[in-house]
Amino acid sequence: MDIEYIDLKECILAENEGDAQEVRDLLKEKNVILWNVMSSPGSGKTTFITDVIKRLGSQFRFGVIEADIESTVDAEKMHALGIPTVQLRTGGGCHLDAAMTMEALAKMPLDDLDVLIIENVGNLVCPAEFDVGANIATMLLSIPEGDDKCIKYPLMFTVTKAVFVTKMDVAPYFDFNFEALEKNSHRLNNDLRIFPVSVKTGEGMDEAVEWLKQQFN
Amino acid sequence: MDIEYIDLKECILAENEGDAQEVRDLLKEKNVILWNVMSSPGSGKTTFITDVIKRLGSQFRFGVIEADIESTVDAEKMHALGIPTVQLRTGGGCHLDAAMTMEALAKMPLDDLDVLIIENVGNLVCPAEFDVGANIATMLLSIPEGDDKCIKYPLMFTVTKAVFVTKMDVAPYFDFNFEALEKNSHRLNNDLRIFPVSVKTGEGMDEAVEWLKQQFN
Repeated sequence: MDIEYIDLKECILAENEGDAQEVRDLLKEKNVILWNVMSSPGSGKTTFITDVIKRLGSQFRFGVIEADIESTVDAEKMHALGIPTVQLRTGGGCHLDAAMTMEALAKMPLDDLDVLIIENVGNLVCPAEFDVGANIATMLLSIPEGDDKCIKYPLMFTVTKAVFVTKMDVAPYFDFNFEALEKNSHRLNNDLRIFPVSVKTGEGMDEAVEWLKQQFN
Repeated sequence: MDIEYIDLKECILAENEGDAQEVRDLLKEKNVILWNVMSSPGSGKTTFITDVIKRLGSQFRFGVIEADIESTVDAEKMHALGIPTVQLRTGGGCHLDAAMTMEALAKMPLDDLDVLIIENVGNLVCPAEFDVGANIATMLLSIPEGDDKCIKYPLMFTVTKAVFVTKMDVAPYFDFNFEALEKNSHRLNNDLRIFPVSVKTGEGMDEAVEWLKQQFN
């Protein structure tokens, strides 16, 4: 059974690669940057994305694709910001793939956008395997999750360009070892940028947003 | 592509059901209770399980199956407690299935065990779909993850008998609404037990362990 499962997965991944290239081609033509945001459940993706949009909303025209298994709460929050939002309910699915992204693109006013954000399903495993056609892939790791996540979920740290370490305001109450995170994650991905941030206090957000701005240009 | 993917998944799930029954039959014969522990990454599974073993180790003979994608750090912690430990490295796989559980059982001294614990892959999505043949399925939800997880990841709250709300010691620093969790999770699963706990301070552990003891008998 194991071997069969792996075969199926490889087949799906190969198909996905072709779809990801289609997404990339379309967005290049439309001059839109696609930013994929991944993390565990409850790391603060919606809060972080909302803050970035507030800080950069005068410089870039944003759109958001919300990938959620069942609920629409995050999409409603984004919609309340007045930006184009497409909700993809994966109906149990554990990740977004390029074909689903393509479906969302068809409903997006691409000519009126500069940056399209994907808030992926909360999951450190499966989303890392599926290239959605993004120009920038980043992840969030919250302080309470611990510094050892790059040892346990290495692929996510390998496929992303930056990790935003969220909830820095509660760092005094947890034993989070930044040196260990840096050492272990750079062993996997030497170019990985690490930004400690707290949306609540604003700590580190200037640096994080400045880096994102460079990626969007 | 969507339809194809769903077909494959259904096929895998059907095969898994048969394997789960095999696991159940073997463990019934050996008089061993199988306890499946699931949660997001970093919710505190290893810490919680370790504490339960310390508290109940004189009454039950425990064994542990550690399901990890890559690392062996959790298995080493369990092994240090002096209990039989089997490490299953899923090599990228996002969950444990019944066939993998069966492989682990073959290496376990089942005649010398009362309770076999599975520490599943840190993932709120995929492990909920795969019956590993457990007698009791439970989940952890840490305070920092937030009270809305049952809205976003409903299946996990449907297939488990109890949710241990961990890291209660940091509750003062987060806006976690217990009433919302109770209301929304009981809508999915009316019998779900909710135990607020902190291994650090010991809060709620007596009640949680008492309930587990009843399940193991």
